[in-house]
Amino acid sequence: MNDTFLKACRGEEIEYTPVWLMRQAGRYLPQYKAVRADIDFLALCKNPRLAAEVTLQPVEILGVDAAILFSDILIPVEAMGMRLVFSDKQGPLLSEPIRNMSAVDKLMIPDVEEDMPFIIETIKLLRKELENKVPLIGFSGAPFTLATYMIEGGTSKNYLHTKKMMFQHSGVFNYLMEKLTLTVISYLTAQIKAGAQAIQIFDTWAGILAPVDYRELILPYVKKVVSELKKEKVPIIYFANNCAGILKDIKKTGADVIGIDWRIDIGDAVKKLGKKIVVQGNLDPSALFLPKEKIEERVKDILWKGEVAKGHIFNLGHGILPETSVENVIAMVEAVHKYSRDN
Amino acid sequence: MNDTFLKACRGEEIEYTPVWLMRQAGRYLPQYKAVRADIDFLALCKNPRLAAEVTLQPVEILGVDAAILFSDILIPVEAMGMRLVFSDKQGPLLSEPIRNMSAVDKLMIPDVEEDMPFIIETIKLLRKELENKVPLIGFSGAPFTLATYMIEGGTSKNYLHTKKMMFQHSGVFNYLMEKLTLTVISYLTAQIKAGAQAIQIFDTWAGILAPVDYRELILPYVKKVVSELKKEKVPIIYFANNCAGILKDIKKTGADVIGIDWRIDIGDAVKKLGKKIVVQGNLDPSALFLPKEKIEERVKDILWKGEVAKGHIFNLGHGILPETSVENVIAMVEAVHKYSRDN
Repeated sequence: MNDTFLKACRGEEIEYTPVWLMRQAGRYLPQYKAVRADIDFLALCKNPRLAAEVTLQPVEILGVDAAILFSDILIPVEAMGMRLVFSDKQGPLLSEPIRNMSAVDKLMIPDVEEDMPFIIETIKLLRKELENKVPLIGFSGAPFTLATYMIEGGTSKNYLHTKKMMFQHSGVFNYLMEKLTLTVISYLTAQIKAGAQAIQIFDTWAGILAPVDYRELILPYVKKVVSELKKEKVPIIYFANNCAGILKDIKKTGADVIGIDWRIDIGDAVKKLGKKIVVQGNLDPSALFLPKEKIEERVKDILWKGEVAKGHIFNLGHGILPETSVENVIAMVEAVHKYSRDN
Repeated sequence: MNDTFLKACRGEEIEYTPVWLMRQAGRYLPQYKAVRADIDFLALCKNPRLAAEVTLQPVEILGVDAAILFSDILIPVEAMGMRLVFSDKQGPLLSEPIRNMSAVDKLMIPDVEEDMPFIIETIKLLRKELENKVPLIGFSGAPFTLATYMIEGGTSKNYLHTKKMMFQHSGVFNYLMEKLTLTVISYLTAQIKAGAQAIQIFDTWAGILAPVDYRELILPYVKKVVSELKKEKVPIIYFANNCAGILKDIKKTGADVIGIDWRIDIGDAVKKLGKKIVVQGNLDPSALFLPKEKIEERVKDILWKGEVAKGHIFNLGHGILPETSVENVIAMVEAVHKYSRDN
């Protein structure tokens, strides 16, 4: 088994730097588009056979060192009782956004086996089909990021509904965060028990906050999720997008691996985090539009700077963009493997 | 004359911390909305009498220590030959976005007196009406931020057209940046000659870049603008939004004052910038939705941390939001004045 990724998560010695890509399964792959031609996005997430198929595609095509469950971060939000639709133009939309206590009251804490059985099934299927070739990563949105979608009803420019709730109705906000924290813990625990060998927690919108608000209102819930999951003994990766200003707080999450977005030099991030934490990242997804020799240069720079940390998993600084050339992605993966062996 | 703001820009001793707010004139003020009821946004920008009127409103209403010219950052872009319209939903839209060399070729470098006479007139009118009560700040978008609007045709999610041009057609991108740099220099020089007593350069979209790209492809043009303007002997403020990851590069712009957005603790920013630079910022604009006593706490915290710098001008970490309560803004301004005197 190629366990380089798991070893890197634990900070163990490895022969080369493992690499996977956020959104490595998806719209930039012709093979994914072929599957999607016959099924809509949400139905695909809930179809274990097809979800497993698209999860495996990038492992074959790109030669990455880990597979990540194909799903959507709003799946557990739907299971909590909200209506979810995907709009081509506006992305995910949740009708009747959460704005008061009675709306939070109505939210259920889902039973994963009962309410999201397809997740369990997909993971079990994947572990069988992967035949231990590479490890399987499970994932969830972090409580705060899920809360923003639930409060705004989708994505937002200024996240003012969210911040107003945080600032003016902290009782409602905390109650929502508590329910989300319990949901995320049971959702991820179920994924691990089904076979996920590592977990990534996506805090996509953490970067919209002032550091004081992240520290006081968000971090305690992340810590709670991480400490509960640690009982399951698999590596926990925490990725907060736009994290440059909150790294010293993120350090306190307790996660084994910290994902870094592309807006900070990974060397600077390692300095902030200290040498006892494994880092993951952080090529700008749009750098894949550079000519191949320039992509190689960036890969080398990131590898060289990542070396200083306790361990380094190569990844993009955010999800891969739909317009990306598969050829360039393959060149990037090969460059990571090649140049990290040479070191 | 209240020259506290200018003294702070120069790092001189002051009795209290001066304060102004990005977008202090605008949609959150009933008096502004009354003016806008009879005139559209772009026409207002080009009407010296009314533009001066709305520029003065926050000076009277809020008691801030500086006025900033009411205008739009895309005014010089329109003068370069692009068609500009404002959509209520999508914000500014530029038709026929710049995507190739011949499009850049067609762009003019405007003659400010000839092509934007209203800017000169508004500034002259304002200096007369301000009667030296508080200083007047002129402003422009930075070359890169203007380039993003011109290349994307408006704002964008991933700025992929911009990055593709930077990465795949650097000749076109550099030619555009050169034309923009000349435009910004002549535009701001004309503002200073007309009476602007300080200048703020807004690099709203600098934060979308990886540090290496900011440093190599953007910073040289900012440096050029700053060094040319320094000949005019007024303070230069450079504000890059989402700056936490590029502060050590921003330090090299040569600007007298560095504006800090709200996503980084201002104390951390001062550490990165060193004690020889004046800082401006950085209350989260949505923190104005907190109860007043909490706003006061945040003001005190920022004042206390800003004290360590060579000088500190209080401001928001980005533009004031339209939904903001005027009462809370006034409370914030009073808190800045009160608690900085106590220090």
